[in-house]
Amino acid sequence: MRQSTETRTVAERGVDYAFSGPEKEGLYKAIFSRRDVRSHFVRNKDIPDDALLRILNAAHHAPSVGFSQPWNFILIKDAQTRKRVKESFERERERSIKMLENDKEKQERYARLKLEGIMESALNICVTYDPTRFGPFVLGRTSIEDTGVYSVCCAIQNLWLAARAEGVGVGWVSILSNEDLERILGIPAHVKPVAYLCLGYVEEFAQKPDLERAGWLPRMDLAKVICYEKWGKQESEKWSGLCDAVSRLSRNNI
Amino acid sequence: MRQSTETRTVAERGVDYAFSGPEKEGLYKAIFSRRDVRSHFVRNKDIPDDALLRILNAAHHAPSVGFSQPWNFILIKDAQTRKRVKESFERERERSIKMLENDKEKQERYARLKLEGIMESALNICVTYDPTRFGPFVLGRTSIEDTGVYSVCCAIQNLWLAARAEGVGVGWVSILSNEDLERILGIPAHVKPVAYLCLGYVEEFAQKPDLERAGWLPRMDLAKVICYEKWGKQESEKWSGLCDAVSRLSRNNI
Repeated sequence: MRQSTETRTVAERGVDYAFSGPEKEGLYKAIFSRRDVRSHFVRNKDIPDDALLRILNAAHHAPSVGFSQPWNFILIKDAQTRKRVKESFERERERSIKMLENDKEKQERYARLKLEGIMESALNICVTYDPTRFGPFVLGRTSIEDTGVYSVCCAIQNLWLAARAEGVGVGWVSILSNEDLERILGIPAHVKPVAYLCLGYVEEFAQKPDLERAGWLPRMDLAKVICYEKWGKQESEKWSGLCDAVSRLSRNNI
Repeated sequence: MRQSTETRTVAERGVDYAFSGPEKEGLYKAIFSRRDVRSHFVRNKDIPDDALLRILNAAHHAPSVGFSQPWNFILIKDAQTRKRVKESFERERERSIKMLENDKEKQERYARLKLEGIMESALNICVTYDPTRFGPFVLGRTSIEDTGVYSVCCAIQNLWLAARAEGVGVGWVSILSNEDLERILGIPAHVKPVAYLCLGYVEEFAQKPDLERAGWLPRMDLAKVICYEKWGKQESEKWSGLCDAVSRLSRNNI
């Protein structure tokens, strides 16, 4: 199947494979300026079909275990449907607030946060996982069942980044009842809702995530989430070059 | 918190927000030419620290529920460690092959496939999920517990795309026992392995996914995975523009 046996790396092979400076910048720009949008949707401005098509096609080109492509995308504009989803959000939000009964300060901060843009975004997309797709034997899913739903998450991240490049904001509403979603959208029992997304043009992509700006939590140092060779080993002679580079990055708070 | 109340969209606001043509191309190029690499790793060629740092930092800038950043990245070069992981793969592969006992033709096709590059890649990365990070109350994870691990999957997809832009291939080995991984890497009981990745420069990024080229499964038409307003509704008057665009794309097999 291989077209070539030469051992030069793709970076050395040139245009077909390598990324130009601006192309590489484009990918990193999408990754670093992507935001979970709740408050900044522009009202009454549709996403054109060609942009939406590119966004969905990007999602569809995610990796999937055994090439099973186990995703579906339910596109929702209908106001009545959204209203019912919003009501599910309100109920779940109330439940969350009650969980913070013993931490009044946190409870008040939580209650002040804007956490969804269901009604004011241009459209909503429910992304689902169908474990029966091309099954029952799905190559690569025989040892770790969850890899099926992991594939759907990769598709969601592709969608999110493509939307960013199109100037479209995405907000993931996770404060919802999946049972409500199944009922409202007629999702069959064997299919699992994975994400409920709100999409639309935005007034701005904030410089930092909303929860970081609001002081809810800080961004962790990259050094804190890297281990070398084994869990918990956060320094290593053998990896000293990377350790130093990671520390410099953390110090510069990039 | 908002810096501006003007309603022009980001696409209309210019350089700070908008993507240039090549920047946009770069993102889509990464998405469409990313491959799950098993056979094409260049041996004995390290990934430079600065490239690896960019790849890991891209992963760390994924979205996460409640900004909980619940991921860790265990970087592995040690040959003994990899050998033990490879043995876990071999055992799980044998188990998979036995599952196809009643479909000899499929079983033989499966047995011929190259499904991992654990030993020949430049390094391995085990990506894990820590549900206790910034817990126990994680904003947005109170209704759907799984959103924690979904965040880790978004980080994996960022890593994968950044690697592609750097000319680095990534292969996700899912035919493994998580119990083996936990033991080999010393992962504590409360932390869950999510992905075991092999990274390295490659001889080529294949034009199509390995499993598509091998005729294991076809890529689905995009039209087949989109529904309008409700599950199962694959046509819609109200969405006719997008329906037509999706059909054209599917016909052109892009």
